[in-house]
Amino acid sequence: MKLYLAGPEVFLDDAREIGRRKRDLCARYGFTGLYPLDGEPTLDAAGGPGSGEIFQANLDLLRAADAVLANLTPFRGISADPGTAFEVGFAFALGKPVAAYSNLPGELRHRAQAAIGPLQPEAGAPATLLADGLHVEDFGHFDNLMLAEALIASRLPVLQAAEPAGDPFRDLGLFEQALAALSGARAAGQIKARPVPPHP
Amino acid sequence: MKLYLAGPEVFLDDAREIGRRKRDLCARYGFTGLYPLDGEPTLDAAGGPGSGEIFQANLDLLRAADAVLANLTPFRGISADPGTAFEVGFAFALGKPVAAYSNLPGELRHRAQAAIGPLQPEAGAPATLLADGLHVEDFGHFDNLMLAEALIASRLPVLQAAEPAGDPFRDLGLFEQALAALSGARAAGQIKARPVPPHP
Repeated sequence: MKLYLAGPEVFLDDAREIGRRKRDLCARYGFTGLYPLDGEPTLDAAGGPGSGEIFQANLDLLRAADAVLANLTPFRGISADPGTAFEVGFAFALGKPVAAYSNLPGELRHRAQAAIGPLQPEAGAPATLLADGLHVEDFGHFDNLMLAEALIASRLPVLQAAEPAGDPFRDLGLFEQALAALSGARAAGQIKARPVPPHP
Repeated sequence: MKLYLAGPEVFLDDAREIGRRKRDLCARYGFTGLYPLDGEPTLDAAGGPGSGEIFQANLDLLRAADAVLANLTPFRGISADPGTAFEVGFAFALGKPVAAYSNLPGELRHRAQAAIGPLQPEAGAPATLLADGLHVEDFGHFDNLMLAEALIASRLPVLQAAEPAGDPFRDLGLFEQALAALSGARAAGQIKARPVPPHP
C-alpha cells in the first residue's frame, strides 16, 4: 500500500535524508512511502528540474498513492504549508484518505489570536474578530476547517504533539505514530490499496 | 457557467456583503458566482452550522462549479489561506480550471526572506536557505509552486496587484479583471460548462 508523504520538510537542506528516513519507517509498517523528491532526480543540483516538472512529478505520485500522510505542522506562520494543503485537497478529491500529524500543539484560534491580536475592544465585538478585521474559526480545530474536516471525513484524525517538537520538520515521532494508526486502519479494512487511476 | 469564489474574505465581518458584491460582478460578466457562504444559511447566527456542515456545503459548491476563481492574497502570513489552497487542489483534481488573483505584489521568495531572514552566513550557503534551516523556492512564483503551477496548467495565470491593495480582502478590482479574463477564456472555448458530477 502506497502512502504519499506530503509536507514542507522537502524544503530542508537535508530533505533527501529525511525522505529516506520516512521511507524506511514506512517499510517497517509495511507501506511504500512516496516522497515528493522521489520523482525529481536532480533537485539539489544546479540545473535541477523546473517548477513544472516538480509539479507534474508530485501529481503523478499523488495519483499513484492509496492514501496520504501529511505533515501539517505550521510552516512559516500560523498554518500549514499551502503546497501541502493543495496536495491534501487534490488527494481528497480523488477519494484518497488523508492522515496527518502536527509537531506543534494547540488550536488555530489561539495561534491567530496571539499572532494578530484582538480587534480594538468594541461593544459586542466577538472574541473571534481579530485586529485585521477578519474572524478566526472557532471550532477547536488545529488548523483551517477544510483541512481538519478532510481528516475527519477520512476517519484518520490529526495526531498533534503534546509539546512543541524541538526540530519540528525532522522529528518523526508522530509520523511513526501515524504509520501505526494507518497500519491499524489497514488491518480494519478502512484503507485499501486501489488501482492506479488513468491520467486525466 | 458557474464559478466557485474561493478566498479568505469569508472571514470578514461583512463576509456576506462581499459575497453579494462578488456575485453581482459575476453576473455582469455572464457567470454564476458560487460563494462559500451560499451553502451555509445561518453562519452568522448563534447556533450556526457546524464545521462539518460548512465543509460539505463548500465541497458541494466546488463539485457544482465549472471553474474556480480564487483569492490567493497572502492571509495572516506570507502565503495564501490554507483552506483556499485545499479548495484549489480539490478543484484541480476534478479537472476544473483555476483562475486566481492576489492583491499583494511580489514573490514568495522575497516575502519569506523578509519574514524569516537569511541563515547565518556560511561559506557556500545559498541565498534560498533561510534562518529556520529551510529553503524557499526560487522559481519567481507569487506563492508555493503547487498553487502557481495549477494556475499555469489551467492556462489562467494569477493576476497580481502592482501595488498592495489598501483593503486587500475587500478590493475587487483584480477580481473583476479576472472575470474579464475568464470571459475571454470562455469565448475562446478554453473553459466550458460541465455536467455536475455525481457525488462520490
